[in-house]
Amino acid sequence: MQDIVIDTPTQKSVIHCGKGSFEQFAKGLDGKKLFVVTDSNVYRIYRDLIEKTFKNSPVHVIKAGEASKTYTTLIGILKHMLESGATRAYTVVALGGGVVGDIAGLAASLFMRGVKLIQIPTTLLSQVDSSVGGKTAVDLNNVKNAIGAFYQPGEVIVDPMFLETLPKREIRCGLGEIIKYGALDKEIYTTLCANSDRLFDMEFLESITAPCIQHKANVVAGDEKDLNGLRKTLNLGHTTGHAFELYYKRKSHGEFVLIGTYYELIIAQMQGVCGGEYADNLKMLIGKVIKMPVYDNAQKAALAAKFDKKNDEQSTVSMIVPAKEGRCAEIKMPLDEYVKTIGEIAEEIKEKK
Amino acid sequence: MQDIVIDTPTQKSVIHCGKGSFEQFAKGLDGKKLFVVTDSNVYRIYRDLIEKTFKNSPVHVIKAGEASKTYTTLIGILKHMLESGATRAYTVVALGGGVVGDIAGLAASLFMRGVKLIQIPTTLLSQVDSSVGGKTAVDLNNVKNAIGAFYQPGEVIVDPMFLETLPKREIRCGLGEIIKYGALDKEIYTTLCANSDRLFDMEFLESITAPCIQHKANVVAGDEKDLNGLRKTLNLGHTTGHAFELYYKRKSHGEFVLIGTYYELIIAQMQGVCGGEYADNLKMLIGKVIKMPVYDNAQKAALAAKFDKKNDEQSTVSMIVPAKEGRCAEIKMPLDEYVKTIGEIAEEIKEKK
Repeated sequence: MQDIVIDTPTQKSVIHCGKGSFEQFAKGLDGKKLFVVTDSNVYRIYRDLIEKTFKNSPVHVIKAGEASKTYTTLIGILKHMLESGATRAYTVVALGGGVVGDIAGLAASLFMRGVKLIQIPTTLLSQVDSSVGGKTAVDLNNVKNAIGAFYQPGEVIVDPMFLETLPKREIRCGLGEIIKYGALDKEIYTTLCANSDRLFDMEFLESITAPCIQHKANVVAGDEKDLNGLRKTLNLGHTTGHAFELYYKRKSHGEFVLIGTYYELIIAQMQGVCGGEYADNLKMLIGKVIKMPVYDNAQKAALAAKFDKKNDEQSTVSMIVPAKEGRCAEIKMPLDEYVKTIGEIAEEIKEKK
Repeated sequence: MQDIVIDTPTQKSVIHCGKGSFEQFAKGLDGKKLFVVTDSNVYRIYRDLIEKTFKNSPVHVIKAGEASKTYTTLIGILKHMLESGATRAYTVVALGGGVVGDIAGLAASLFMRGVKLIQIPTTLLSQVDSSVGGKTAVDLNNVKNAIGAFYQPGEVIVDPMFLETLPKREIRCGLGEIIKYGALDKEIYTTLCANSDRLFDMEFLESITAPCIQHKANVVAGDEKDLNGLRKTLNLGHTTGHAFELYYKRKSHGEFVLIGTYYELIIAQMQGVCGGEYADNLKMLIGKVIKMPVYDNAQKAALAAKFDKKNDEQSTVSMIVPAKEGRCAEIKMPLDEYVKTIGEIAEEIKEKK
């Protein structure tokens, strides 16, 4: 087991990584006032564990899936907290994937102006990325994460035991963010290349989790509120990923991150920002995880980028793209040029098939 | 004019006090991206000023009154922000009383995980109290301020020109909080006693505003997130005030604070925590502002205190009460004893009439 610490001006956040971290966490719960939030999938699989661990604490089960990331779900949690007699002395436990973590985290930040929060991510994506760093949110008016808060969990429990029950698609989704870290961090990149044939291997995934969290922890400690540009680097691939996610919906967030990274990598190549063997290797890694889908309406989908909160102006699109090993760059493009380029890349992918 | 600064770990907040502060603020707005929130009363009276000052900025008008402090109103603001193309570069301007400040402040904290916020309080209560210190909230399930955030406004513009259009009842409401400061701060207490016959006088109110804000600023700087007990002192009179406010509704927040302070002052006397001339003077000041109403169901109303977020346990009621000049104390009582005592005080008031 390994502890990673993020010290921000607002809160110290400790991430306990490794096998056995959940068991250890469970041992220290006696007498604590907890309110547990989970989703229908996790509850179905882990109901016994939840009942054994959290005993009489209220458990709020939301419907699994991105479609739950609404203020209606959020208010449902907050009402349940009030109705079950929760006070400022309570701790919200978010047990689940990114959606549960985002909504329950926001609920914790809002309830009585903020109660303690513990994240227990159960998917690969939430373990390596979304449970760490305090970003919480729900969507509104078809805008991803339109309303939210920066709210650090006091503790994060990252136990690989939860990965064992994950479908392959969920692993793929987590690999989306892991490859993103590869495009930001030289050591992770080298490790990924050296293990490109065993990316889906459980032992490998266990070993790569802590380095990814450590990378994110360093970034968050330097730019908790996303103000100085450092944290923005974690959005590599996300501009196009989010736009496609809004438009096409069917795939999961991590898959869209991979697709977005692929498209934005090609834009980076076109602009001479990235190239050579490095670009080829990144494409190879992406190819090991996902087949690029064929999109007919890519231009229309790309238009959704204008609602991305990463853009201060709706007429300009900002993207974080891979540059070279351990280095990324920001590309800003007029919206119309961006839309046209995304359309061209989609055409190219179509022709290759 | 006078500037008061609050420096917290999260944000520096500058309060510009005095005549002319709004005009000065208005001069510096060119090119700023603003989203204005106000209420139907303020809009009716100041429509010309708003249009002249904020020109083409979107203006969101909520219905005046405490009943607007709901998540529905909050979501309405956030949707309007999205629809009018607001980005992270926008600033929310809260122009109005406490309700506008609370909701618009929460909207600013949530939009894209937080945009800049300027508070322009237009009532005496919001000028001396609620616009300063970063507490934002809406009610839920009949629980006051059940969901909210600590979110400091970058600037607060406190201009007495807005007081000129206020009905007397609103002045009374602000005096509720001003007398609360008197019960916490020796200098304010002395000033209030020396001016007890001109509490409603505009010049006097102008002169007492900055000292009240300075008191609050000192408290907030020492305990922004309401954690170490210092900020809790600002809740003097509020436990019973909030309970009555929830149950009886008709009066305004500041009036209930006065009523709550009166009841809790008597509890403090019963427990030997407060007494003598000091207690008499506080009662005299309260009496100059409001006549104690006769309540038949005071016990029932008092029960609502168990939903107060100031209580960590629903079976115990915590109150901040006056002790002696410049000193307050905390009284904790079992809920049933508290309810019984409130009933007795209400009976006494009834008999005296």
